Amino acid sequence: MTAGPGPAGDERLARAALSWLAEPGDAQLSALLRTCSPGAIVTALTDGTWPPGGDGAWPPGGAPGPAIPGLKTALNRWTARLGELPTQRTLDGWARAGIRLLCPGDPGWPSQLAVLGDSSPWALWVRGSADLRFACLRSVSIVGTRAATGYGCHVCAELAAALAERGWAVVSGGAFGIDSWAHRGALSAEGITIAVLPSGLDDPYPRGHDELFQAIAAHGVLVSERPPGRAPTRPGFLVRNRLIAALSRGTVVVEAALRSGALNTARHARDLDRPLMAVPGPVTSAASAGCHLAIREWGAECVTSAADVLSQLSFGLDEAASGPGGLGPVLPRDELDPVSRDVLEAVPARTGWGPARIAVSAGVDFDTVMRCLGQLAAGGYVERCERGWRLRFAD
Amino acid sequence: MTAGPGPAGDERLARAALSWLAEPGDAQLSALLRTCSPGAIVTALTDGTWPPGGDGAWPPGGAPGPAIPGLKTALNRWTARLGELPTQRTLDGWARAGIRLLCPGDPGWPSQLAVLGDSSPWALWVRGSADLRFACLRSVSIVGTRAATGYGCHVCAELAAALAERGWAVVSGGAFGIDSWAHRGALSAEGITIAVLPSGLDDPYPRGHDELFQAIAAHGVLVSERPPGRAPTRPGFLVRNRLIAALSRGTVVVEAALRSGALNTARHARDLDRPLMAVPGPVTSAASAGCHLAIREWGAECVTSAADVLSQLSFGLDEAASGPGGLGPVLPRDELDPVSRDVLEAVPARTGWGPARIAVSAGVDFDTVMRCLGQLAAGGYVERCERGWRLRFAD
Repeated sequence: MTAGPGPAGDERLARAALSWLAEPGDAQLSALLRTCSPGAIVTALTDGTWPPGGDGAWPPGGAPGPAIPGLKTALNRWTARLGELPTQRTLDGWARAGIRLLCPGDPGWPSQLAVLGDSSPWALWVRGSADLRFACLRSVSIVGTRAATGYGCHVCAELAAALAERGWAVVSGGAFGIDSWAHRGALSAEGITIAVLPSGLDDPYPRGHDELFQAIAAHGVLVSERPPGRAPTRPGFLVRNRLIAALSRGTVVVEAALRSGALNTARHARDLDRPLMAVPGPVTSAASAGCHLAIREWGAECVTSAADVLSQLSFGLDEAASGPGGLGPVLPRDELDPVSRDVLEAVPARTGWGPARIAVSAGVDFDTVMRCLGQLAAGGYVERCERGWRLRFAD
Repeated sequence: MTAGPGPAGDERLARAALSWLAEPGDAQLSALLRTCSPGAIVTALTDGTWPPGGDGAWPPGGAPGPAIPGLKTALNRWTARLGELPTQRTLDGWARAGIRLLCPGDPGWPSQLAVLGDSSPWALWVRGSADLRFACLRSVSIVGTRAATGYGCHVCAELAAALAERGWAVVSGGAFGIDSWAHRGALSAEGITIAVLPSGLDDPYPRGHDELFQAIAAHGVLVSERPPGRAPTRPGFLVRNRLIAALSRGTVVVEAALRSGALNTARHARDLDRPLMAVPGPVTSAASAGCHLAIREWGAECVTSAADVLSQLSFGLDEAASGPGGLGPVLPRDELDPVSRDVLEAVPARTGWGPARIAVSAGVDFDTVMRCLGQLAAGGYVERCERGWRLRFAD
């Protein structure tokens, strides 16, 4: 069911180094990675084989790419941090503290991040019990203002809990206000919730949410593009927001003033062609003005309940197989391993079959069918029913 | 500027009689009027030259039309009321009480009712100081639930006042709750408001609004399809709602539960291709659920202010001349008399001209130019400015 064993140790260390050297979304590094491998970039930096002769041929000996504006300044920025590069020992220490490095190609890497193109993260740091990739397959972002009203907090928690009850993970940013109630609502329904943080995961921001982050790590997952030890920066919040939008299948704005950062996440969702939704509120409440703006000007759907949200996100099995527009946060059927595909073919549409019968039909042994069914269920392809397993259709 | 002197006394009496005999929206009478004149129908009924030989040739000697289902039952319904038919004296008495009969072709007849086709009223009863036709040219319906919340009443009154301040008339149904605050809001801004009532105007419904109706008559106009002496009927409310939607250029729902009658008016607006708008509210409030439904399912615009409403209704002079879709509640340019059209041609677009200069340019005398400018202003074509008169463009 996974794409492969993930990148080798060298590349992992190089990606950890890049995450250390450059801020998330660094435009020059993103551009360099189009033509250079992470390892080549880190080696050139540490060997001091720069500055380049010209912006177009860097690292020296690498394939000449197009000129990258601002590369020289960026090199200075990166080299300023060279002395502290994380080693394998550093990574091991963080791993013992529960903070793992996730690289493109790793089994847990969320394939839907491909929608970000060049600005996709070069590595993610995760901490928690949930599998980020599978949790995101059926996930909704719920975002909003820190200055939430009692109305917004109430509606947000109810919505998150109702979505979690239906098996959807709730993605948010871990901030005060609406974000926190999105996480709490999901946790209250014993659902999975994902906090995408603007800080290193050793000291998650904001500190006032330490207990909440503990709970999220226990039942969901904390994610960051920034390595341990890094405090949030102001531009970092905006860069983080694109990740919230890209990880989830759709984004709901619960309360947002006209200049709220939540609207930045909303714009990312819209720009990524992911369903954008907003919860209306009193027109007399400034905290709902951004939601009404999104409905009126940006084509956000007016949603009032979990059922409304799911009707925007639902998709049939055919769509699940191809992925909506090829970019949606679903596990594409052609990424399934051949055995899982055989098992999926054998699962009936309406009446459930027991695993033994599916195993016979698929021509695999019982242990294999059980492992595949578990993965297919997490991927949203199949579901348990009274009589066994059957295909899962749109909610 | 008007279409003609209006129908002759005979036809007026006949239309008054039809309004007396049949309930508004009576399908059989609407069908009959396609082939028979009001006078012919009333004469046949009073002479007892019915029942007809066949449904297809009635009144006897009239042009045979298509068979009208249910015509026989309808004839019985109408003749039951024949004894009490209003005479010219009755009409004169009502007129002394301020209740006037308005017939298609009368100068004050709202031409935009043509959008209703066969179900257009055969006569209207009006009471008040405002000219119904001109008031409706720039009007918005604001409708909503009787069981309004404090939030809804507040938002409704603010919205109606802001629209009235910008020279828009507010149309509503005179009911308790949202309707009453729509009227009150417009009156508070010294604007024109139009109450379309389900009862005869001698005893407007509901009685608890007697004072409000007095104020509306003083500063706006009360309208009904039902003649004096008639109490409202349950189906009458729904038939009345089509009139609210048809008279105004667009309809705003402020608060409506899922089964509110206001949603019936909203559907009429949508079916008539008039802009439909709804004010959002807390998703926890049942009184806003109908508004959210209209936004989500019926394509209603989410509006939060008078500016939002006007941006849905605005139209340039070109559109004003042709009428949006040919059916909008504007005075079509080709219904202007030739002199008014000449004057309109002479009005400058940006800097104002004084009436004397316009008179010279249009080749008419001063009194004529003043009369025409007043009518063109009421029709929304021109406006006063510091330096005189200029064309009026979309708000």
